[in-house]
Amino acid sequence: MYEGPVQDVIDEFGRLPGIGPKSAQRIAFHLLSTDRAEIDRLCTVLQKMASEVRFCDRCGNVSEGDLCRICADARRDAGVICVVEEPKDVAAVERTREYRGVYHVLGGAISPIDGIGPDQLRIAPLLTRIAEPDVREVILATDPNLEGEATATYLVRLLSTFPDLSVTRLASGLPVGGDLEYADEVTLGRALSGRRSVG
Amino acid sequence: MYEGPVQDVIDEFGRLPGIGPKSAQRIAFHLLSTDRAEIDRLCTVLQKMASEVRFCDRCGNVSEGDLCRICADARRDAGVICVVEEPKDVAAVERTREYRGVYHVLGGAISPIDGIGPDQLRIAPLLTRIAEPDVREVILATDPNLEGEATATYLVRLLSTFPDLSVTRLASGLPVGGDLEYADEVTLGRALSGRRSVG
Repeated sequence: MYEGPVQDVIDEFGRLPGIGPKSAQRIAFHLLSTDRAEIDRLCTVLQKMASEVRFCDRCGNVSEGDLCRICADARRDAGVICVVEEPKDVAAVERTREYRGVYHVLGGAISPIDGIGPDQLRIAPLLTRIAEPDVREVILATDPNLEGEATATYLVRLLSTFPDLSVTRLASGLPVGGDLEYADEVTLGRALSGRRSVG
Repeated sequence: MYEGPVQDVIDEFGRLPGIGPKSAQRIAFHLLSTDRAEIDRLCTVLQKMASEVRFCDRCGNVSEGDLCRICADARRDAGVICVVEEPKDVAAVERTREYRGVYHVLGGAISPIDGIGPDQLRIAPLLTRIAEPDVREVILATDPNLEGEATATYLVRLLSTFPDLSVTRLASGLPVGGDLEYADEVTLGRALSGRRSVG
């Protein structure tokens, strides 16, 4: 449809998650009509990310050094490990500003349909970390969907062999600010079965 | 929130049209987790586009040479000029496979609020082209919104000075496949006033 290089840019952007062909076209024409500096800046930060960002040796989060900022921070409580699927989940928990422990990034969730079993996840390094005497609690913060629940269930069974380790799971229930009427039945069922005494 | 280079990539993507902060984050982590080759490919096509793509000397469409593929194609009817706002509109009309004439890209639409008046658009080159004896018809295909209509109205007045030139405007009406019930009143009004005899 377009002259070659423009179509190439549209195709590349269209391959990124969440960008359809229409958005890709809009972005390509935006970049075409703006200053060349914008394209250069985008490429610079991408190359910088590709060459500088690695993964934390301990928790698997994104990192610039051997250890990520959280693992390297002595003020964080290394006795509590929050287990998440991806680095972006670390960011989500951090945004709450309520958590002072550390993390462990699995790198995904158990999903037989995608060929991802426990061996493809960073479970062995997790067990090594838990074997350290300081660890008191593991919070399972995998996604509340089929794969995340399967992963949590698998880990619960695995971690039951550790004596004196408290294993917890994030609460399921109604989202704050949501509307009871529009809650799906599974969420509402979870909220009911997980109801708490307030009186 | 994130380690520096990742946040830089999120910020840069967040600046592109149609990409919000959540999508930008998703794209950054996608690029982080895939092969480095994907980042290199994206940068290569962007740099190639920035250095190779220019604008057609005649119509203002994107082009790799002095003339775009459409202007350079002797099979296109140079007697009919379709006036559009942006190169992406050329692509939209081409997709219909119904048009065999040529184009003229204005580079925008008259929009006093954005400080864009007739002088900022490629209107003078359009007049030069129309002055050639072969040109029989100008189709005004600016967007059917406030700015596009203002631009079309301006051009109609300007082009009325050319004798023997037919000036037409794209039809307004109900979108094909749409639902009468959900049509906005302006569109439905246009569809009514532009009704055609079919009996």
